[in-house]
Amino acid sequence: MEKKKATIVLFSGDMDRALAAFNISVAAASLGMEVEVFFTFWGLGLLASRPYRLDKGSPLQRMLGLLSPGTPRRARLSRLNMAGIGKRAMLALMGKYRMPSLEELMGTAKSLGVRFVACTTTMALMGLEEQDLPAADGFAGAASYVARASESRLNLFI
Amino acid sequence: MEKKKATIVLFSGDMDRALAAFNISVAAASLGMEVEVFFTFWGLGLLASRPYRLDKGSPLQRMLGLLSPGTPRRARLSRLNMAGIGKRAMLALMGKYRMPSLEELMGTAKSLGVRFVACTTTMALMGLEEQDLPAADGFAGAASYVARASESRLNLFI
Amino acid sequence: MEKKKATIVLFSGDMDRALAAFNISVAAASLGMEVEVFFTFWGLGLLASRPYRLDKGSPLQRMLGLLSPGTPRRARLSRLNMAGIGKRAMLALMGKYRMPSLEELMGTAKSLGVRFVACTTTMALMGLEEQDLPAADGFAGAASYVARASESRLNLFI
Repeated sequence: MEKKKATIVLFSGDMDRALAAFNISVAAASLGMEVEVFFTFWGLGLLASRPYRLDKGSPLQRMLGLLSPGTPRRARLSRLNMAGIGKRAMLALMGKYRMPSLEELMGTAKSLGVRFVACTTTMALMGLEEQDLPAADGFAGAASYVARASESRLNLFI
Repeated sequence: MEKKKATIVLFSGDMDRALAAFNISVAAASLGMEVEVFFTFWGLGLLASRPYRLDKGSPLQRMLGLLSPGTPRRARLSRLNMAGIGKRAMLALMGKYRMPSLEELMGTAKSLGVRFVACTTTMALMGLEEQDLPAADGFAGAASYVARASESRLNLFI
Repeated sequence: MEKKKATIVLFSGDMDRALAAFNISVAAASLGMEVEVFFTFWGLGLLASRPYRLDKGSPLQRMLGLLSPGTPRRARLSRLNMAGIGKRAMLALMGKYRMPSLEELMGTAKSLGVRFVACTTTMALMGLEEQDLPAADGFAGAASYVARASESRLNLFI
């Protein structure tokens, strides 16, 4: 029997939204679903191993790169971030209750077979190449995303 | 015949997004669907009867509690809130056109059988117990959410 | 054989989120799906041909209208907008890589048969009439949205 599919668009690069996306991904993969996360726009930076755009790209791309966090460790809270104070409080609470960090949760998702796909349109816009996004398992555009989503039992835009 | 299911993740605690979530919930329940709203992260405060975390929890949890609005009445607009001016304008317009407030809409949803489920992971993080969230009909984690969502005809992340 | 349906709630009026919504809509329509976008709350302004609420409505509605961008051209970035600097950088990059603007993308969606539906509840709240939203193909409430969504293969809330 074919496995049920779940497909999540991760548009946001915020830590709290990404935590929600990967908690759901891990739960779905644990229940035997075939999960794909499609990283687009601000979410794309979560596939980078280091802040991108500091050393290459056009001035405009560097500006976006400087401001866009990039890497899971640099992701911010969507609210109450307060120049990092709210984020540090959240991280301290997560550590206290032994909850996995965003990086750990993404690692667990990978180990359970969740597939990470980078949006090629966003890559072109930001001047990123495949080697800039080492955490990506694949690279695709919106048509490819829609084809998969239309076969999925669970679709979310986060 | 089994009823069609709708499952909404309410991640946001903002008044405007919550209004959208419960307008859709009420419409779906009115059309005979079995609706569940899964309150997580900032959305969890909407299940509280009073601002939580003021009188207990660790200092970090109290800090998050002080900043996170809690209770439907304290929910803010996601934009144009302007220290409450935009929100008051919105409330005044809603009153003028006899539209239900967020609290009334949540009451209507309940009376139509919409089930309110609190995310236990968020509860642990924020140091909340079941009695802190009197509006909740149930308490569950991501696995339970995913199991239901994969059987639902309508899934949204708000 | 009946066509597969996709239904997108466009709650946000931000340029980046709207670009994502219409990129997905265009891809879905190109793949032969029947696509409907339901414009609600801040998203409703994208159906206006000019900033609405400047010359009519109650003072409260005019205030919301002044602050809410209205028209695709006036849509802002959800982050890094920086009083328009971030948006201009994004527009410059989009132009450089020959990516369509939001207005062009919405035009393409229309030409592929994507249906634009305005939320009548939001219209009442903002004091808008049908002639204020010339880009709308239809006008409907939440019940109509839910009926369609429950028959759709792809549902997103953006």
